[in-house]
Amino acid sequence: MLRTHNCGELRIENAGNIVTLTGWVQKIRDKGGMIWIDVRDRYGITQLIFDESKSNPEVLEIARTTGREFVIQAEGEVIERVSKNNKIRTGDIEIFVNELKILNKSKVPPFTIEEETDGGEDLRMKYRYLDLRRRPLKENMLLRHHIMQETRNYFSNKDFIEVETPFLIKSTPEGARDFVVPSRISKGEFYALPQSPQTFKQLLMVSGFDRYFQIVRCFRDEDLRADRQPEFTQIDCEMSFVTREDIMQVFEGMMKHLFKTIKDIELDDFPVMQYSEAIKKYGSDKPDIRFGMTFHELNELAKGKGFNVFDNAQLVVGIKVDGAADWSRKQLDALTDFVRRPQVGAKGLVYVKYNQDGSYKSSVDKFFSQEDIGKWAEVFGAKPNDLLLILAGESEQTRKALSELRLKLGEEMGLRDHSVFAPLWIVDFPLLEWDQESQRYYAMHHPFTSPNPGEIEMLDTEPGKVNANAYDMVINGVELGGGSIRIHDKEIQQKMFKALGFSPEEARAQFGFLLDAFEYGAPPHGGIAFGFDRICALFGGTESIRDYIAFPKNNSARDVMIDAPSPISGDQLQELHIQLRS
Amino acid sequence: MLRTHNCGELRIENAGNIVTLTGWVQKIRDKGGMIWIDVRDRYGITQLIFDESKSNPEVLEIARTTGREFVIQAEGEVIERVSKNNKIRTGDIEIFVNELKILNKSKVPPFTIEEETDGGEDLRMKYRYLDLRRRPLKENMLLRHHIMQETRNYFSNKDFIEVETPFLIKSTPEGARDFVVPSRISKGEFYALPQSPQTFKQLLMVSGFDRYFQIVRCFRDEDLRADRQPEFTQIDCEMSFVTREDIMQVFEGMMKHLFKTIKDIELDDFPVMQYSEAIKKYGSDKPDIRFGMTFHELNELAKGKGFNVFDNAQLVVGIKVDGAADWSRKQLDALTDFVRRPQVGAKGLVYVKYNQDGSYKSSVDKFFSQEDIGKWAEVFGAKPNDLLLILAGESEQTRKALSELRLKLGEEMGLRDHSVFAPLWIVDFPLLEWDQESQRYYAMHHPFTSPNPGEIEMLDTEPGKVNANAYDMVINGVELGGGSIRIHDKEIQQKMFKALGFSPEEARAQFGFLLDAFEYGAPPHGGIAFGFDRICALFGGTESIRDYIAFPKNNSARDVMIDAPSPISGDQLQELHIQLRS
Repeated sequence: MLRTHNCGELRIENAGNIVTLTGWVQKIRDKGGMIWIDVRDRYGITQLIFDESKSNPEVLEIARTTGREFVIQAEGEVIERVSKNNKIRTGDIEIFVNELKILNKSKVPPFTIEEETDGGEDLRMKYRYLDLRRRPLKENMLLRHHIMQETRNYFSNKDFIEVETPFLIKSTPEGARDFVVPSRISKGEFYALPQSPQTFKQLLMVSGFDRYFQIVRCFRDEDLRADRQPEFTQIDCEMSFVTREDIMQVFEGMMKHLFKTIKDIELDDFPVMQYSEAIKKYGSDKPDIRFGMTFHELNELAKGKGFNVFDNAQLVVGIKVDGAADWSRKQLDALTDFVRRPQVGAKGLVYVKYNQDGSYKSSVDKFFSQEDIGKWAEVFGAKPNDLLLILAGESEQTRKALSELRLKLGEEMGLRDHSVFAPLWIVDFPLLEWDQESQRYYAMHHPFTSPNPGEIEMLDTEPGKVNANAYDMVINGVELGGGSIRIHDKEIQQKMFKALGFSPEEARAQFGFLLDAFEYGAPPHGGIAFGFDRICALFGGTESIRDYIAFPKNNSARDVMIDAPSPISGDQLQELHIQLRS
Repeated sequence: MLRTHNCGELRIENAGNIVTLTGWVQKIRDKGGMIWIDVRDRYGITQLIFDESKSNPEVLEIARTTGREFVIQAEGEVIERVSKNNKIRTGDIEIFVNELKILNKSKVPPFTIEEETDGGEDLRMKYRYLDLRRRPLKENMLLRHHIMQETRNYFSNKDFIEVETPFLIKSTPEGARDFVVPSRISKGEFYALPQSPQTFKQLLMVSGFDRYFQIVRCFRDEDLRADRQPEFTQIDCEMSFVTREDIMQVFEGMMKHLFKTIKDIELDDFPVMQYSEAIKKYGSDKPDIRFGMTFHELNELAKGKGFNVFDNAQLVVGIKVDGAADWSRKQLDALTDFVRRPQVGAKGLVYVKYNQDGSYKSSVDKFFSQEDIGKWAEVFGAKPNDLLLILAGESEQTRKALSELRLKLGEEMGLRDHSVFAPLWIVDFPLLEWDQESQRYYAMHHPFTSPNPGEIEMLDTEPGKVNANAYDMVINGVELGGGSIRIHDKEIQQKMFKALGFSPEEARAQFGFLLDAFEYGAPPHGGIAFGFDRICALFGGTESIRDYIAFPKNNSARDVMIDAPSPISGDQLQELHIQLRS
């Protein structure tokens, strides 16, 4: 090794030791007679000291030629510092340097390599290798590493087998768009990169592997949003001979294990909420239950009083903000502006202030008596000084808008504390979603999800009413994972494909191997997949998954550091039997 | 859970317990009054028993309708067996079944699901999910799982960080052929799938991660051989501030750890052999040193005696087979046929028998006296009863042919024992290889490999003589891994690209990001990559890596189970801005 110690490990006990350190120059202070250099590596920062009256002049000379981010090797004696620095673990000591070597020079970096940097997003993406030197990103990568190891420990200890499934698979039009890979050997044919190892993990259950897991890259060629990446990582799992409750118990156990080992937090048992209740109370299938502010519906009380907006609405629904009756006109206008934003999509916001004196002041006083509004307040369980915020319109859209408003208020009022974790399970999703445009059903999870026990027959008669034997794990309003008990019977799988509008030939062409497999003793099985990048972000306490991926793509699916994608040669195209479309 | 126990865990202590098992029907024996069913799952096999005089007739009826590979659930009482079976861990007990349920039926499988199967390779690939039910393949996957976990444990305990590098990267013409992925968003541009995370792991060193590892999928679009797959798994590692010896120590430690934890074998320290010695003594840079039979060169003694074959040869070289002087004409002819096979490529084989009486009998007695041959025998260190086998011709080809012969003889003579493991390091490879056809140098490892210290200047003057600061780990004749100290200096990297015939513009276009990174404080670093599939095959004691991959491709890079690659739709092609070449 070019060093005897790293930059994070020397302590006062090492005083007198002769050591060699290597690392990057974090900071240089040259006070004429004295020079201090902070040298940094992954493990920490240690102060080097040079003294004009005592140091070798050549060493001083070299010290003076170093600059920020130079890579150096310093040999010297560990000495106790005069003025200790209790902010860093090596703050009791410094190294009096006898020999100094520049291992590599550095140009002045394009942004500062500090806790907070002055570099913009684009510049930091281009020089990602420099951004990763910054402590926050480095810590994110370490966190990711630890979560990965603890995830595998949990599963290995529970007899799960890690199996690597293939990356060069078959394109299926169902679901998101595939990335494809032209074949050189099979002219005119393509592999696809997996959106998930779904069918392979089911085949592993058919093979009798009983308990499978994998931390695996998945690919979706979709237009990107802030928290989406074309390649992302999943914790992928499957079990045989289990019920929904068994699966929920095992994976709730995984999450508890991660919280315990990574954050030393003991989570209570996760509550289980029906999808319909989540939608009714929170307007979302991934409710943030760190705070209340649940929905109350007013259809019966608010309609038929001559207020057109309510009368014409499919749904009148609101939330109560405790102690907010004194909010100003300006504050309420801002909320109205918020709900009217196209992303939120409400037409307007009705408010009711429950005054301290027991009277009500609302934006709809023209249409509703104090008595009318008193009944609303009762439904909300409001007390004097509370504020009611009410939206009306088409049900789904209105719930969605109110959910956005609820989350915004929760954020602003400090109710979404990053150090509090409120997990729950959502169950009993609809199996199918009707798509107005294409006039067909789509699988809400995927076409391999089993209907709830006892509801299979309804697939033929009322497919829209069938519930899925599925479950999502949600923490703090983030859907971290979801899964289902799978169909393991060929007839039911065919029924499902039929409900989704597949012809038998289409089903055969795409999933023939799975239907075949179901004829050779497929066990009852089910599984789950977790968004690993999101788990990292949740544990790290920030929003963007990009900060937890070493080399992410930008919003145009481009790696600006290596400049990919990029053109390839005509020879390559020819070998692959393809050409560019002009 | 649909079971209380698995099929591998019940013991005599459980007698009297009421249990529920699930699994696959391995075997049914119906002796009229009694029925036995062996039920199998991942964990083992347990015998179920049904007795006409005592069992519920309905249960008997169900038992009689089951067939091989049916999935069943059986509830009953654990009882002691009358005739115990000590071949299986559950052999002391059986289950007297009270309730039996068929969870899924099975068609008759296309081959037998037994230790040895009657299915051909093609059929087993098509029904891979059934082949994986067989114990040998299941054990291979479990072995792979354990090696993976122990690999990660080793590195995690040594402060290595697992970092996931991207799969959608940039195509580079150097090295093997890339698989490419057309971009939908960037018209006419392509990603490439990584042949290895080489540049990313070097960038992680530039980022200061200090110690990186990953068990990662890599991709090469090459024509396949028996032990090659288009996607394969690598243990990929990199370290900063290290010398070659540091790296060799850490990764020798990894291999010792795997042997200790997986096979309970304590390996001695690995010998280190120079590339030139390996070639001279074994004719191979991955010598199998489980046995001797090293090469001896005879150029000085054998030339100039009028035997044209030797006189015209660049190299005359042979091996000694102990105690084989009594081999028959037929045996020697078979060896001659072997070396003449096109894959081996020798023109003929010269033998010398050192007879018991001290005389020699050779196939070249016409040209060489007993005294001449006696000198050869001395070089070989031969004793009476030994056999010398000698080849001659162009040096490289002759060494390769003799190496093949040596390995064949080692195999036939039982010297390549699968339970013996003989590791070594090979070092001091040539940095560059001259390619006659394209009249240029190629990097023997890759273009980021550093020259040996002190040999950098020779890059300009005698590039062919420069040695690489590189190392391969070889066990039992298999190259399991290799790596090098990398170049971390922009000037040397540019010099290297120049030696490889890159113009500055080409170097910039392909590796600009790396050259840039080298200007911002790249530390001295080096690393290694191991073929994970090969490690599994070595530990498993069989040859083919396919048996250690859950879902391998065939020799045409096709997954015959899912039928990939396959055509994609015109819409998909259009979105990707490509079309098929007619």
